Amino acid sequence: MSETDGRVSRLTIDLAAIQRNYRRLQAEAGPATECAAVVKADAYGLGAGPVAQALADAGARRFFVAQVEEGLKLRPLLPKAEIFVLNGLQAGLEAHFHSEFLIPVLNSLGEIALWTAHARSVGRALPAAVHLDTGMSRLGLPRGEVETLIAEPQRLDGLHLELLVSHLACSDDPEHEANLRQLRLFAEWRGKLPAAPASFANSCGIFLGPQYRFDLARPGAALYGISPLRNRSNPMEQVFAAEAKILQVRDVDRGTTVGYGATHRIESPAARLATVALGYADGYLRSLSGRGLAYVGGTLVRVVGRVSMDLIAIDVTDVPPEAAHPAAWVELIGPHLPVDDVAERAGTIGYEILTSLGRRYSRHYVTAHD
Amino acid sequence: MSETDGRVSRLTIDLAAIQRNYRRLQAEAGPATECAAVVKADAYGLGAGPVAQALADAGARRFFVAQVEEGLKLRPLLPKAEIFVLNGLQAGLEAHFHSEFLIPVLNSLGEIALWTAHARSVGRALPAAVHLDTGMSRLGLPRGEVETLIAEPQRLDGLHLELLVSHLACSDDPEHEANLRQLRLFAEWRGKLPAAPASFANSCGIFLGPQYRFDLARPGAALYGISPLRNRSNPMEQVFAAEAKILQVRDVDRGTTVGYGATHRIESPAARLATVALGYADGYLRSLSGRGLAYVGGTLVRVVGRVSMDLIAIDVTDVPPEAAHPAAWVELIGPHLPVDDVAERAGTIGYEILTSLGRRYSRHYVTAHD
Repeated sequence: MSETDGRVSRLTIDLAAIQRNYRRLQAEAGPATECAAVVKADAYGLGAGPVAQALADAGARRFFVAQVEEGLKLRPLLPKAEIFVLNGLQAGLEAHFHSEFLIPVLNSLGEIALWTAHARSVGRALPAAVHLDTGMSRLGLPRGEVETLIAEPQRLDGLHLELLVSHLACSDDPEHEANLRQLRLFAEWRGKLPAAPASFANSCGIFLGPQYRFDLARPGAALYGISPLRNRSNPMEQVFAAEAKILQVRDVDRGTTVGYGATHRIESPAARLATVALGYADGYLRSLSGRGLAYVGGTLVRVVGRVSMDLIAIDVTDVPPEAAHPAAWVELIGPHLPVDDVAERAGTIGYEILTSLGRRYSRHYVTAHD
Repeated sequence: MSETDGRVSRLTIDLAAIQRNYRRLQAEAGPATECAAVVKADAYGLGAGPVAQALADAGARRFFVAQVEEGLKLRPLLPKAEIFVLNGLQAGLEAHFHSEFLIPVLNSLGEIALWTAHARSVGRALPAAVHLDTGMSRLGLPRGEVETLIAEPQRLDGLHLELLVSHLACSDDPEHEANLRQLRLFAEWRGKLPAAPASFANSCGIFLGPQYRFDLARPGAALYGISPLRNRSNPMEQVFAAEAKILQVRDVDRGTTVGYGATHRIESPAARLATVALGYADGYLRSLSGRGLAYVGGTLVRVVGRVSMDLIAIDVTDVPPEAAHPAAWVELIGPHLPVDDVAERAGTIGYEILTSLGRRYSRHYVTAHD
């Protein structure tokens, strides 16, 4: 039995579409700004290995991960890339960063001290990025530590300062006053610190205008099809489809209830339901209960009743029987059901839809040559 | 570097507690009812391999999975167990069920025909369960097919009928009229079909009373610490803890905003925040934004601002500094934060909290001997 014979759900990931999204973002950023690629959280659930390699083939040279473990997994696949670790440097891991050429994004004076001490101990300059917190209150040097660093730039002695970094809190809302406030603070601090290339814009930030782009942009979400433009046409391509098989089809009468809690009741004289082999254990969020849509046989249909762990029910009354039968594939997320639309129905953002995709799918990577 | 040195989040899974929960459920079910164990969806995210082996050591002999692939993974670990596949038999997989001694839970006359045909082709009786749909409208023979089977029991010729199965839709609500309606229908149909042991109760069903228990109960959720009793004290033990490390601590002033969308604003003159290395990519649902709790230094504290992909912020103003520092562990789900409580804050059920637990945790299995 091949591994996938019995699989009833599949993810098809279009690496060529991810590459086109990368080039689209690089074009938008312009020639003065290099586009890195954010591949943390297993490339937002799509598979850091194949995704990062495809992005490298498309021209990306710098990659961002969240955790050192993610960097260690990526290094053998991308021997020449610069790999930045956003979560910074934890004490005790200095030698692992050094031996694998991972670049810590230093988030505090304490982390700067750890890394400079390691530079002294190995007797050579070590690459680093320094993260200035301009308004996320999450990671990065807070104002007081930035002011100390401005007053005492020798704290960076022994480091090769590759980047000054900050992160936008509200870039999905171009009108939010925080954007300009963060930008001004970043520019002000940068002017007082030792010279270094700057990285400020995430996916949405690239579209906020040239002044937000600096030397290196760090798109993640837009690479994977999430729109960087609120309330406007999405310039990015969808890059994957999540599909599952119908297991059973049943005709039901008026008054029949469906699923846990009997929350859905058939109100028409008759209806046809299909049970599909996908549930919240596969990342099809339970908040899509009674709200999700599915695409089968050329028709968008409704998810009815509660999403259960391994199964959903869809109403296929209006689908030709030859299209809605056991073993037929149903699209739940994909070209007809963009990830942002699914997220909106689920009451969340596309990022969470992506990172929730579970482990039971068979995964198929499509390249331009397929 | 060992694999876990750089890990900033960990799951500690108490196999002995799962075993005690199994024994507790077996005691509740009584001597006339055997307790199986539901280990689908990777034992609700906790790891089907170690969990199923621990349950087998505690006396479980019958296991339920959702998908055939799950059964194939479990078989080498449990060579003597009966493994039932709830999603039933898909055409083309008959030989794999047979060769691995997986027992399909047949959900339709069509699946019964597939399995009897395979029995004829191999010249021996094959084990099967038959699922009667008494009110879920999800999987199982609908009324019309049950009536056909009652009229034509020879359709089962060639099968060894191990179980007649049905599944409760509303068992978490003991007062729901559907429970008794489903019970009566199951009993009625069972009386007209060829004699076979019966399985009806899930975790909650065991607590609905003796008439719901039949020959084999199928607890899943309660094994893993989810309460089978609504609005009453939970008789089950918590079986795992999800923890993550603090990456950074910062003092902030009144007016500081926290996280994406700047949704949380510090209203006190001063506060201290800790950034913790866990986010929705780890299954800490984004719906816990501004609602979650964390346990650190003997104190329950609040998650503030939005949950992001890899990080959350918690307010540690009231935690002694010696307990809230970089590298300190914080509990997000566990003995002080039961899975059902976390689920309620997230607007979902404990099942989804469990199955969402991601892949970045280091996993530690604790047994009675540790």
